[in-house]
Amino acid sequence: MKKTVLPLMALLMLGSLLMQAQNKRSLTSYVNPMIGTAGMGHTFPGACAPFGVVQLSPETDTIPHNVDGKYQGKVYAYCAGYQYDDPTIVGFSHTHLSGTGHSDLGDVMIMPQTGALKLNPGTATHPENGYRSRYSHANEKATAGYYEVMLDDYGVKAQLTATPRVGVHRYTFPKGADSRIILDLLHGIYNYDGKVLWSSMRVENDTLITGYRLTNGWARCNYTYFAISLSKPIKSYGYRDMKRPKYVGFWRKFDLYHNFPEIAGRDVVAYFNFDNQASQVLEIKVALSAVSTEGALKNLRAEAAGKTFEQISKETHDQWERELDVIECEGPEDHKAMLYTSLYHTMINPSVYMDVDRQYRGLDGNIHMAHDFDNYTIFSLWDTYRALHPLLNLLKPERNTNMVKSMLAHQQQSVHKMLPIWSLMGNEGWCMTGYHAVSVLADAMVKGADIDYDAALKAMISTATCHYFAGIGEYMKMGYVPYERDATAASNTLEYAYDDWTIYAAAKKAGREDIAAEYAKRALYYRNTFDTTIGFASPRYADGSFKKDLDPYQTSNEGFIEGNSWNFSFHAPQDVYGLMNKLGGEKQFLAKLNRLFAMDLPAKYYEHNEDVTAECLVGGYVHGNEPSHHIPYLYAWTSAPWKTQEWLRTIMNKMYRNEVRGLGGNDDCGQMSAWYIFSSMGFYPVCPGTDEYVLGAPYLPYMKVTMPTGKTLIVKAPKVNDRNRYVQRVRLNGKPYTKLYITHADLLKGGVLEFDMGSRPNKKRGLAKTDKPYSMTNGN
Amino acid sequence: MKKTVLPLMALLMLGSLLMQAQNKRSLTSYVNPMIGTAGMGHTFPGACAPFGVVQLSPETDTIPHNVDGKYQGKVYAYCAGYQYDDPTIVGFSHTHLSGTGHSDLGDVMIMPQTGALKLNPGTATHPENGYRSRYSHANEKATAGYYEVMLDDYGVKAQLTATPRVGVHRYTFPKGADSRIILDLLHGIYNYDGKVLWSSMRVENDTLITGYRLTNGWARCNYTYFAISLSKPIKSYGYRDMKRPKYVGFWRKFDLYHNFPEIAGRDVVAYFNFDNQASQVLEIKVALSAVSTEGALKNLRAEAAGKTFEQISKETHDQWERELDVIECEGPEDHKAMLYTSLYHTMINPSVYMDVDRQYRGLDGNIHMAHDFDNYTIFSLWDTYRALHPLLNLLKPERNTNMVKSMLAHQQQSVHKMLPIWSLMGNEGWCMTGYHAVSVLADAMVKGADIDYDAALKAMISTATCHYFAGIGEYMKMGYVPYERDATAASNTLEYAYDDWTIYAAAKKAGREDIAAEYAKRALYYRNTFDTTIGFASPRYADGSFKKDLDPYQTSNEGFIEGNSWNFSFHAPQDVYGLMNKLGGEKQFLAKLNRLFAMDLPAKYYEHNEDVTAECLVGGYVHGNEPSHHIPYLYAWTSAPWKTQEWLRTIMNKMYRNEVRGLGGNDDCGQMSAWYIFSSMGFYPVCPGTDEYVLGAPYLPYMKVTMPTGKTLIVKAPKVNDRNRYVQRVRLNGKPYTKLYITHADLLKGGVLEFDMGSRPNKKRGLAKTDKPYSMTNGN
Repeated sequence: MKKTVLPLMALLMLGSLLMQAQNKRSLTSYVNPMIGTAGMGHTFPGACAPFGVVQLSPETDTIPHNVDGKYQGKVYAYCAGYQYDDPTIVGFSHTHLSGTGHSDLGDVMIMPQTGALKLNPGTATHPENGYRSRYSHANEKATAGYYEVMLDDYGVKAQLTATPRVGVHRYTFPKGADSRIILDLLHGIYNYDGKVLWSSMRVENDTLITGYRLTNGWARCNYTYFAISLSKPIKSYGYRDMKRPKYVGFWRKFDLYHNFPEIAGRDVVAYFNFDNQASQVLEIKVALSAVSTEGALKNLRAEAAGKTFEQISKETHDQWERELDVIECEGPEDHKAMLYTSLYHTMINPSVYMDVDRQYRGLDGNIHMAHDFDNYTIFSLWDTYRALHPLLNLLKPERNTNMVKSMLAHQQQSVHKMLPIWSLMGNEGWCMTGYHAVSVLADAMVKGADIDYDAALKAMISTATCHYFAGIGEYMKMGYVPYERDATAASNTLEYAYDDWTIYAAAKKAGREDIAAEYAKRALYYRNTFDTTIGFASPRYADGSFKKDLDPYQTSNEGFIEGNSWNFSFHAPQDVYGLMNKLGGEKQFLAKLNRLFAMDLPAKYYEHNEDVTAECLVGGYVHGNEPSHHIPYLYAWTSAPWKTQEWLRTIMNKMYRNEVRGLGGNDDCGQMSAWYIFSSMGFYPVCPGTDEYVLGAPYLPYMKVTMPTGKTLIVKAPKVNDRNRYVQRVRLNGKPYTKLYITHADLLKGGVLEFDMGSRPNKKRGLAKTDKPYSMTNGN
Repeated sequence: MKKTVLPLMALLMLGSLLMQAQNKRSLTSYVNPMIGTAGMGHTFPGACAPFGVVQLSPETDTIPHNVDGKYQGKVYAYCAGYQYDDPTIVGFSHTHLSGTGHSDLGDVMIMPQTGALKLNPGTATHPENGYRSRYSHANEKATAGYYEVMLDDYGVKAQLTATPRVGVHRYTFPKGADSRIILDLLHGIYNYDGKVLWSSMRVENDTLITGYRLTNGWARCNYTYFAISLSKPIKSYGYRDMKRPKYVGFWRKFDLYHNFPEIAGRDVVAYFNFDNQASQVLEIKVALSAVSTEGALKNLRAEAAGKTFEQISKETHDQWERELDVIECEGPEDHKAMLYTSLYHTMINPSVYMDVDRQYRGLDGNIHMAHDFDNYTIFSLWDTYRALHPLLNLLKPERNTNMVKSMLAHQQQSVHKMLPIWSLMGNEGWCMTGYHAVSVLADAMVKGADIDYDAALKAMISTATCHYFAGIGEYMKMGYVPYERDATAASNTLEYAYDDWTIYAAAKKAGREDIAAEYAKRALYYRNTFDTTIGFASPRYADGSFKKDLDPYQTSNEGFIEGNSWNFSFHAPQDVYGLMNKLGGEKQFLAKLNRLFAMDLPAKYYEHNEDVTAECLVGGYVHGNEPSHHIPYLYAWTSAPWKTQEWLRTIMNKMYRNEVRGLGGNDDCGQMSAWYIFSSMGFYPVCPGTDEYVLGAPYLPYMKVTMPTGKTLIVKAPKVNDRNRYVQRVRLNGKPYTKLYITHADLLKGGVLEFDMGSRPNKKRGLAKTDKPYSMTNGN
């Protein structure tokens, strides 16, 4: 009876496997998109596919960026369009930035409606005056690639999902009610009167709408084309156009405002009525393109045509599951949620910025074909060069290489011949300082990315020598950016010097000793902006003198960008010993580090600041903004490396919590999240462009990281907890490991990295000079 | 010695031929672009290549189209940007409309400047307050493809020429002066505050500028990309931007207004300084594209790169010479000037609207490839279906077929699925009434153009059944457009019926009797809008009643478009006998025609009208506007065909003179000129869509017309002059010719058409029924 026994056994085994699979929670189930949606996180809860350009998410208010030219501070909270504490939802738009501190987008907003036609959003206090609706978090659900909410004012259930280029809406209207959608082409995030330069749509047939809008926001001229496919025929439609731009010639020929299929203007809010008898469900697929409506149609056809909402939702869910499947871990459920949500947050921006046929809008406004790479946009480089790109370079090197190639294309298309500073939808956003794309390029080169070294070096040098950019010309001549030239001169100098070091590193890698020699000099220019009489980095005037009465606690107007001198004075990751020397030697340096974390920063230094808040502080250390992210790891170069372990856990416990208010600062397109992931694994790229990661201490007892090589790195710290935060010993593949860093090559090889943890620091570990991480100089 | 004798003889013969050639004036030498530049002609004097999209011409004022939403009547004179009587030139822009009555464009204006920097145009009364300059007609020269003028305020000599897609400027600055150009991206024709939606430029290097602007004018959203190549390096540059649109992010990084290579905004006027020491000449090549700056660069490279101003000017001159070389004629020099200038005016619009790589911006906003045709725009169809397209169909059928194919592409790209009404730079301008593209298609089909009949018929029907367009739905149901629906209901009905007849004719040609039968009915709907109680066409209400107290002399607000009932009542070229019947029979009809030409129209009927002025009247006949253009030929269907000959010469003498004020009305993109050319040849296409041309009388004693077949048609009227205006006898190829019309096939065959002219009419000629031209019915 063998014949029947075997299948039976097989079935039993399969059953057991299925049980296991069922018992094991999916990785996506740990993703909590609500983390960071309240307060400072600036994340959004809506639906998107990994690295997708469409991020379909609810907007909860319509605060303008400025009114009569005056900045409206309240808008800062709405960088991602959503604030958890808001009582109403205005609508669902298709583009968002994840965790930024400046914003834009919110393109092509759709809102379902029943009852009286309302073509304005209304206000949070009087939602009944507009199309917005009240909602309750009890009826809200957000997972990776899926979002739903009940719109109480209409009794409409809204469900959202997305492919990389298509947002998919499903609205279930109440039986008996009429059904309508509002398509608001005026709405936007960080909106202002006049931001919409032009918008246009065509009702191609009763289930297809195409169109576009041009906006002059942070993206100086942003082209958003769309193609909207509807599951039910439009019954009737129309629009309002408050400004009634010039449209001559039509005279009495048409009723322009009712069932007229060609709608355009600068202030267009349209409505579409549907039959609600046969079915109460309306599904809407909205494809975007930066190229053309034809491009949007191609995207629609390729990614969403013929698929049900469930299919798309399932496919996107599965894609997230696969993308998250680089890390397996054990630990408290909240920590796992934080980890997978962080990983999720590192795969929203940058976003793929090209149509399915590989056409994309370049920085020069022309349409290009991405023949041999995938084009990405949204490079928040001041933030992301630090940990996000190194993380992608480690875990998703193919994507990171495509991002690097996108940056090179950007440089080719730049009239300034500069690599991106802040790439935003085919525009240069110029946000923040430095030219940190060079760091991303160098890091990719040093870690073996397949890019053209000569082209990369050329682009890096072209960027670093753009003389009219933020004091570069003066910096090249004088060795620092003079304070007269730029209000953030001191941090500019610090950042340029690090960036220049990465060019040095890239030139070394490429065997270009001539370039390396030149940039080795520039890499030490950071030293020129230190006022040794006070022991702080300080802005310096052209005559060589330093700013008088520097307040090193003060973030604003002291010569630094979004950081005070206390934090910025630690900014020379390329030459920590040199920095140490500049700050008075190891003892002084260590004391200064200790003081930074332990100080009691007076409230006046953060209570009126957008970027520095009580929530993001540990002493005077500001984790909520990026310039400090490497500082906890600087202890590695001192006689007290164990201090890194002490402070890391404090920071992680405070700044990363599985709660809507769980992020201590703007996630900044995944930088905060990438910091968390690295620090959870037990190491961090203090100086991208080296092949080293400085060891901290694992946050979780077990992590298995799948390397792009296919090999796995297992990081074990079985005893770790808040008490046992100190590293006693480390073993790599069973052998004692004394170094305070681990190399990229070692990580790629995989194996087991074991941390023995304890409640008291091992103060003897990592003191030998040979175990210390990279420093360009010994201090001289 | 034969060997030497032969070459000598050949040389002598060659010498004699050369002498002949030198004695003979070139055809271009007769072209006088100044005709029509004063008063109502609305032509421009600047430089362009035949059918080129670039029309580089001076602007003499900057009257806004509207101020605070109110129409500024004075702007009407500036349809082409130039009015001869103006004392100043504001600058030279690259796009114009030739002879229209509504306007737009004036894109990318350049003006040379010396001395103080002025970034506003100034006013005509105080030119010194702005960058404009005084000039004198004594220093002005305009020929086909070339224009020059001395700018007195700067002592700068300006010379202009053009290829189809590139405008070429040469400015000679005075020695010792500085030299500068102003690039005004805010300037436009029919400008208004807010018309520029966005403008952007990049200083790519010190001799190359690229950019674009988007305008919301008559063309609802017009994309003008440009690439500007300079013969000298830019020394320094900058711009003003009065509105300072939002451009965040740049902070203190740049001096945005000086030598910053990325300029954008809604109100940009830029300046560029040059060295004027080594050479005083600055040459500027400005290529346009509607596709992209890349397209503009391609156009620049293909048409102008490496060529001197002289070369380009010469090549364009030669191209004009070739294009004009379809007609050879004898007669008074002024008549020849008028004829060749008219021919010149028929080859400015429509204009080729695609890049050298065949890419063009379609009506759907997408970029298309014109694989198997040349794409054209600027179809002023209400005007040009009458004579311009028939003329091109006869003399330049390949171009006309490409225009037809462009119209078919337009229809495919139209969300209304309509053929163009007024095609304007990839936009639908909706100007005027009817759907006369169907006439152009039918005329092309009937005369043998190689187009897809099925596709053409489909497009025609789709257009003629667009129910929401200007009362078509009601017209289809009721047989006329009710007055309640449309303020020009009566003329709509008349025009639709003719248009429908052309669909009937096209269907006949295509062998589609089903369609022919349907449109045969619609072709007679014109009869439904005649109020037989008063003997005039009149607007009719939905209840069947006619407008009370119609004033048939009044042009405005009487149910007709740009024409009074007196003129419009003759509007049924497809069914003249039917019309005759409707108007009370032949005797009444003839009396009415006579009265039209002989009446003394009270001044109140034209003194406040833009389209009907004293200059364009013969009695009550309005030649300055199009609805009447066929009327003088309607005598052919009556018992007094000779009357056509009488009035034609009166009209031509009055309305077409070799003077700046020589045109009796707007040239309307060549329609007025085409009427003149046909009428000069002695025949006219009264009913395009038939293969007949109704005979009038030649205006010149000799014309040799080269047919596309290569054969030549010689029209002789040796004795013709103002006295001898009457046709005594006609001979075709030596044989007596009694018909009042000649067919397209006969013209193509070539030969000699001889008119014996005399001072008294031959009242017996053309009375036989068999000699009469086409009429759809015999009157019933």
